[in-house]
Amino acid sequence: VAAIVVAAGRSERLGRDKLFVELAGRPLLEWTLSAFEACELVDIVALVLSESNLSLGTSLARSGAFPKVGPIRLGGARRQDSVCAGLDAVGGYAWVAVHDGARPLLTPDLIERGIVAARETGAAIPGVQPKDTVKRVGAGCEVIETPDRSRLRAIQTPQVFRRDLLVAAYSNGCREVTDDAALLEAIGLRVVVYPGSYENLKVTTPDDVVVAEALLSRRLAAR
Amino acid sequence: VAAIVVAAGRSERLGRDKLFVELAGRPLLEWTLSAFEACELVDIVALVLSESNLSLGTSLARSGAFPKVGPIRLGGARRQDSVCAGLDAVGGYAWVAVHDGARPLLTPDLIERGIVAARETGAAIPGVQPKDTVKRVGAGCEVIETPDRSRLRAIQTPQVFRRDLLVAAYSNGCREVTDDAALLEAIGLRVVVYPGSYENLKVTTPDDVVVAEALLSRRLAAR
Repeated sequence: VAAIVVAAGRSERLGRDKLFVELAGRPLLEWTLSAFEACELVDIVALVLSESNLSLGTSLARSGAFPKVGPIRLGGARRQDSVCAGLDAVGGYAWVAVHDGARPLLTPDLIERGIVAARETGAAIPGVQPKDTVKRVGAGCEVIETPDRSRLRAIQTPQVFRRDLLVAAYSNGCREVTDDAALLEAIGLRVVVYPGSYENLKVTTPDDVVVAEALLSRRLAAR
Repeated sequence: VAAIVVAAGRSERLGRDKLFVELAGRPLLEWTLSAFEACELVDIVALVLSESNLSLGTSLARSGAFPKVGPIRLGGARRQDSVCAGLDAVGGYAWVAVHDGARPLLTPDLIERGIVAARETGAAIPGVQPKDTVKRVGAGCEVIETPDRSRLRAIQTPQVFRRDLLVAAYSNGCREVTDDAALLEAIGLRVVVYPGSYENLKVTTPDDVVVAEALLSRRLAAR
């Protein structure tokens, strides 16, 4: 299994590179890489960086703490360009686990659950039932529908795929996507949701930094 | 406008009464009541408590810091019984803002936005676009659909209604509901979503306590 850690985003909402925000004393990306390092089912990690964080990210990955990090690639402007760069770099592996670098709270357990789930179906993505009621609204923000919450899942990463399925999905044309699984769904492939973790948030806003810091500090304190 | 603060939940997932968890030095419920106290458009607050927190909640509400708190009522086993107890207690008011006591991060601004929005339509509820992709799954957790996220809203409280509309919705029969707006939708009334706040979380799990504590501490530090 090869992990593809996508860390090429532009952090527009945060105003500085979120991948290197300090969280409980360590850069965000270090937390992310540590989880893959500690997961026995992951053989190699491909890291996809942006031009602006290539130097910092490479230093971190080559610091000695992350021997699993193999290829380091430059991503593109769109998320899918970055994922494709990662896919190219791990051509020899049958399975890939694609992860948003900005989700530092994943655990080795979560990754393992994803890999086990994907082996049965070819594609497995982590999800949690939304804590709040979710409604569908119209153009004027009027409520149109309240879907059954027990059948909704807020989707996270790592998303684990048979590599050939994801390659096929991407070669089907590259519209702007934020979600790899949607590409498989679009060509009729079956995707299952495995249990994610409420902690596994994506750090995007200053609020998220406060929340991630608090959760990671507690995790350190509990060790 | 009368606010109805529902604080009669059983806190099963937290193992102790979440309404009185300390957050940044103050009990959770104190944060909640403070926001209504500070919102100029709210005239009175009806507080609905459970048997187990009636004494503690009454002491807090009558401490002198919350002159707007008028009726204090005992809630029921189901959420709707508690809302109905609150509705009965504020019969003289044309508008009600129903709020989960366990959402301590609301602000006077948020309440005001809700009241202004409700005046146009009769029913307005706060919502934010989910940060994660949301998918609909089937019985085997297989993905069935990825709805357009820009048209989804994670719904919060305070939910503001013309009192007579909410009374009508409740008198239409009381199935188990976690969401007052759904009752209005069920009898064909129009409900609009106004902009909520990502901070406005409902404290349910130990994780939520950590997150609320961090966000409220930051709020205090920024004063």
